[in-house]
Amino acid sequence: MSVYNFCAGPAMLPAEVMAKAQKELVDFHGLGVSVMELSHRSKEYLAVANAAEANLRELMGISDDYAVLFTHGGARAHFSAIPLNLAGADDQVDYLISGQWSAGAAQEAAKYAQVNRIDLRVGNGLEMTRAGEAGQGAYLHYCPNETVDGVAIFDEPDSDQPLIADYSSCILGREIDINRYGLIYAGAQKNVGPAGLALVIVRRDLIGQAQPTTPSILDYGLLDKHDSMYNTPPTYAWYLAGEVFKWIKAQGGVAAMAELNRHKAALLYDFIDSGDFYQNRVDPSHRSEMNVPFQLANPDLDAAFLAQSQQAGLMALKGHRSVGGMRASLYNAMPIEGVQALVAFMKAFELQHK
Amino acid sequence: MSVYNFCAGPAMLPAEVMAKAQKELVDFHGLGVSVMELSHRSKEYLAVANAAEANLRELMGISDDYAVLFTHGGARAHFSAIPLNLAGADDQVDYLISGQWSAGAAQEAAKYAQVNRIDLRVGNGLEMTRAGEAGQGAYLHYCPNETVDGVAIFDEPDSDQPLIADYSSCILGREIDINRYGLIYAGAQKNVGPAGLALVIVRRDLIGQAQPTTPSILDYGLLDKHDSMYNTPPTYAWYLAGEVFKWIKAQGGVAAMAELNRHKAALLYDFIDSGDFYQNRVDPSHRSEMNVPFQLANPDLDAAFLAQSQQAGLMALKGHRSVGGMRASLYNAMPIEGVQALVAFMKAFELQHK
Repeated sequence: MSVYNFCAGPAMLPAEVMAKAQKELVDFHGLGVSVMELSHRSKEYLAVANAAEANLRELMGISDDYAVLFTHGGARAHFSAIPLNLAGADDQVDYLISGQWSAGAAQEAAKYAQVNRIDLRVGNGLEMTRAGEAGQGAYLHYCPNETVDGVAIFDEPDSDQPLIADYSSCILGREIDINRYGLIYAGAQKNVGPAGLALVIVRRDLIGQAQPTTPSILDYGLLDKHDSMYNTPPTYAWYLAGEVFKWIKAQGGVAAMAELNRHKAALLYDFIDSGDFYQNRVDPSHRSEMNVPFQLANPDLDAAFLAQSQQAGLMALKGHRSVGGMRASLYNAMPIEGVQALVAFMKAFELQHK
Repeated sequence: MSVYNFCAGPAMLPAEVMAKAQKELVDFHGLGVSVMELSHRSKEYLAVANAAEANLRELMGISDDYAVLFTHGGARAHFSAIPLNLAGADDQVDYLISGQWSAGAAQEAAKYAQVNRIDLRVGNGLEMTRAGEAGQGAYLHYCPNETVDGVAIFDEPDSDQPLIADYSSCILGREIDINRYGLIYAGAQKNVGPAGLALVIVRRDLIGQAQPTTPSILDYGLLDKHDSMYNTPPTYAWYLAGEVFKWIKAQGGVAAMAELNRHKAALLYDFIDSGDFYQNRVDPSHRSEMNVPFQLANPDLDAAFLAQSQQAGLMALKGHRSVGGMRASLYNAMPIEGVQALVAFMKAFELQHK
């Protein structure tokens, strides 16, 4: 039986990447040791690290005006690092709130700067006109894909401020123009690699003036100067991220991923909308292509749905503990066959219990 | 040909651990997915995480008075986190300086507290009597094993202050009485697992009053409250650390490791001291059992030594770029056969070039 893993994160990685990783786990390129046993300063590991950065730059069209940092700590590290690096303690900073993650980012930022919260959450949609209330702060932060809420902001907010975005759950999932951003960041464990790594892509003119109390491992200027090796980086996660970048290139790049992701999401949303047994309450113009939360009209069936889907090889469909219901995460690594299998299961479950 | 990897870090992991990791990389316990693709909140992953902590507590005799934290960021993260968590900005803190790592810890701490540096480095030894100059600060920090310098402090400094120690390169390498410490910490990539994970073992009465600007991912009280899952932890590194802990138990525990480590180090130091072709300049009472730096009396032979040792399957013997020469790291995972092979090579090289 095929297993399809719908976990929101740590999430599935491409099957081809995992097969290659397994093959070379204990003997990397004939060296007789694992890539995770190499010095991060060895020429063999530097080739891995540099290729990963070069491929990410190519996939996303990132110029040398931007630093690409491979960091410790996950996205939450950057909830702290962004205000520490890009604002002074007395500076205003603007945060658009569209769900749990952007709210969390704003909460952490309030330790380091004067946070102006612009709450977009109204009813089932997002009141995007409220984004116009920004404009005072040193930067404007938003989250283009809210993993828990299944809410997406597809168009960049219109602002002259440096735009900062948490791309944790949608980086490389659709094409973006990086030049519209001051900084984007992403925890790796959804669309890039294993947990323990975060990517930061930041315009170099914005960094180098971190607050004096910035921990060194979160100082973007220092990390850039040391090519993300101020301290020992998470080398194995960096290697796996590099393998994922190669895999995306082999699939046809981000444009091909985006087309497949739109197709996968449409398949699931169309089925959900076709009846009233399942529901997704997000306004259609803001539905995430990466994370699809849905509810059974009769929540008494939740436990049976989860048990039977698990038995059918459809893993980790339980919704986030804060919202309940179900959630299917459809990151780049999820093949169309996984979504087809999920929809087939949902149809059969509905027939059985209607 | 056997390959023996003497890298100071990221370092070799036990061969048995790597073989098991390879076997179950893409199918963990028959789930059809990798352990790195599991939600950190799934019951399957929580079993991994909890077993790792339980085994570490058993190996080191850690009571419930201490929190055991599995964190992001490596030891350098804790250079910042320790003063942020255990001192106020106006508090004095004492740092014993015995080499590059303790000096680095003191430098970072000066961002967050009033650092009193007590420099022990004199000649070839350590002027340990200077440790008595501590006593004013909220805590006393030292580094029992300096990876770059090959310098060890085997006996805990005598102080009534909470004792803080950077055990990155010697945790689980010899027996210690954890109850003598307020906190010990260790980057994983030397004696525990892959890079990207750090362990913190801290007496619970010392935490919970972090400075207000402490980043959440470095707030020990918050991490303890959330069982090291305030944010997504580096799950694969945590899993591998757990496998290393099981392996150490199977070898006979820390006492057995310590005996083997003493034996391995003696083999190499005795050979170095037996002639004048090779030299180690550290006072014998402070020679590290984990990291053995040595110089060739004729440095013109350095390049030939490195090239030929590499060809002989003896990897990564180059000394740290700041000190030059050679360095052999003999962590727990290095079998006695590796040290025997190194000594045999050194003998042959000496005969060839004398």
